[in-house]
Amino acid sequence: MTPRQLHRLGATAMALVLSVTAVHAEDIAEYMDFFEPLPYLPPIPAANSLTPEKVELGKMLFFEPRISGSGVISCATCHNPALGWSDRIPTAVGHDGQVGNRNTPTVLNSGFLGSQFWDGREPDLEGQALGPIEAEIEMNMDLEAAIRRLKEFDIYHEHFAAAFPGDEDPIRAENIADAIASFERTLNTPNSPLDRFLAGDVQAMSESQVEGMKLFVDAGCVACHNGPALTDSGFHRFELPGSTDEGRFIVTGDEADMFAFRTPTLRNVAVTYPYFNNGSVADLRDAVQLMGQQMLGQDFADEELDNLVAFMHALTGEMPDLVIPALP
Amino acid sequence: MTPRQLHRLGATAMALVLSVTAVHAEDIAEYMDFFEPLPYLPPIPAANSLTPEKVELGKMLFFEPRISGSGVISCATCHNPALGWSDRIPTAVGHDGQVGNRNTPTVLNSGFLGSQFWDGREPDLEGQALGPIEAEIEMNMDLEAAIRRLKEFDIYHEHFAAAFPGDEDPIRAENIADAIASFERTLNTPNSPLDRFLAGDVQAMSESQVEGMKLFVDAGCVACHNGPALTDSGFHRFELPGSTDEGRFIVTGDEADMFAFRTPTLRNVAVTYPYFNNGSVADLRDAVQLMGQQMLGQDFADEELDNLVAFMHALTGEMPDLVIPALP
Repeated sequence: MTPRQLHRLGATAMALVLSVTAVHAEDIAEYMDFFEPLPYLPPIPAANSLTPEKVELGKMLFFEPRISGSGVISCATCHNPALGWSDRIPTAVGHDGQVGNRNTPTVLNSGFLGSQFWDGREPDLEGQALGPIEAEIEMNMDLEAAIRRLKEFDIYHEHFAAAFPGDEDPIRAENIADAIASFERTLNTPNSPLDRFLAGDVQAMSESQVEGMKLFVDAGCVACHNGPALTDSGFHRFELPGSTDEGRFIVTGDEADMFAFRTPTLRNVAVTYPYFNNGSVADLRDAVQLMGQQMLGQDFADEELDNLVAFMHALTGEMPDLVIPALP
Repeated sequence: MTPRQLHRLGATAMALVLSVTAVHAEDIAEYMDFFEPLPYLPPIPAANSLTPEKVELGKMLFFEPRISGSGVISCATCHNPALGWSDRIPTAVGHDGQVGNRNTPTVLNSGFLGSQFWDGREPDLEGQALGPIEAEIEMNMDLEAAIRRLKEFDIYHEHFAAAFPGDEDPIRAENIADAIASFERTLNTPNSPLDRFLAGDVQAMSESQVEGMKLFVDAGCVACHNGPALTDSGFHRFELPGSTDEGRFIVTGDEADMFAFRTPTLRNVAVTYPYFNNGSVADLRDAVQLMGQQMLGQDFADEELDNLVAFMHALTGEMPDLVIPALP
């Protein structure tokens, strides 16, 4: 599906949802139908089978700072497991303290996204994985140099051979990407209050959270924030006050994509602040209000905001178990 | 005990050990008497009771990057649990990519050291903890600003109140230091092959490791590398090729301390490379040979080096269990 098609689908879905909700969504079961529990695993690409060996290797690489120019920055620096697998600062800080212009997205549940980066410039996690290693303002390491560095360690030879059996030269860029992507596909957050509610546990969400869920449907938020990760993976124009980032337009050159960004997941939104492409909004309540104004032309009342924010907290799942790898 | 006294004691101990070993250490039990198993906990100062609440808070603070000027550097950046709680680069890289002039010591078993930093300029972990937060080339954060930052989070108010009950203003510098020090005192690595060997498990060390242990005593290494952490915590002059670091002299101004550094722990030495105050020696075998030449006036033969290095590997203990804290 092309981005344009996705965009059109988003618009169609919103129209559909608004008409449906106005008529039918009267009892809680019908509201629940708008949501999907988080599956244990996201879609796995046919070309990158998810094996324990790849996951283990990918975890090592994810925490490996020596594939950065400085030797101290790893994927986990900005995608910090202590901080919701993000960094909780407005925009990323990388090599030599350089500050990027976009907020670090969480890795959690990222395998459920239809594309990667705020502007969707990569289709999948395999495509995403190597970019930050080479980016001058992030890890600033030539990929060939990173590969030479890894080859210095016997244990990486062993792990790459185990993860990519039959590959005569397994320590190479494509395999690094496949391994990191495989690890990332295991970083999912099941059993949020919403998931338990959808499974039938009516006590899993508070009254305010249930009201927020209903309003989330009735107001139309669910038009874009749907599916297991609460994103349509579509691109929507969003004029964030103070932001000059042209977003998806930079990728496509299509005027229709000006200021458009991929709908972010709402899973764990309460623990992945600050918000929006430049991280300029720190408060979840402010972010919800701004979304209502910008995308739905609606000012939520105080009680509505209370309920929507309560519902956002119902989207925080269980953090992945993590044993920090012992690197060579 | 003053540093001078420590230094004298070290010299006395070396003379004593050399005479004792020449005469008595003939069977394995006598060699074993030169070593101590690692206790479960290091000494706890009377003024900083080790409570679970302090340890938990200290863990949060240890992983907290928002008490750095950039917002992305925490204690765990250089004391990285994936890298033996050190960084495995020659000298530390901190704020804005600035490179320090000393190798990052591991936090593992650091509570067993008689002083902190390479030059022993702080007597204990409480004294050490705040230095890197404020150091311009490390975390580069004014301590008052760090405290203001922590006070923004309700959960830190709760954790400081729980860790320091009765303290009316618990989020303050002294308590930050006490909490971090408390967490660090739990980062010990028991059950190394040497510890199991000392406990009676004669199969816990290989034949080569046992030979290495004997040579470690006979050659005199144990004169300075003794006690539970295999350090006398004394200061010894060491002329590292290429290093101009004046070491302990910078602290005391005493000519006798010129180029002297505190004996590093040898626990986990195999996983805490590179070696020496400037991290200029990456290979453990080279480090052992250099020590023999510099401190003992002795060139070890190949087989002796094999055995000593094997014994060094017997000092790698079990890494602490770690659940990454969920920060606010």
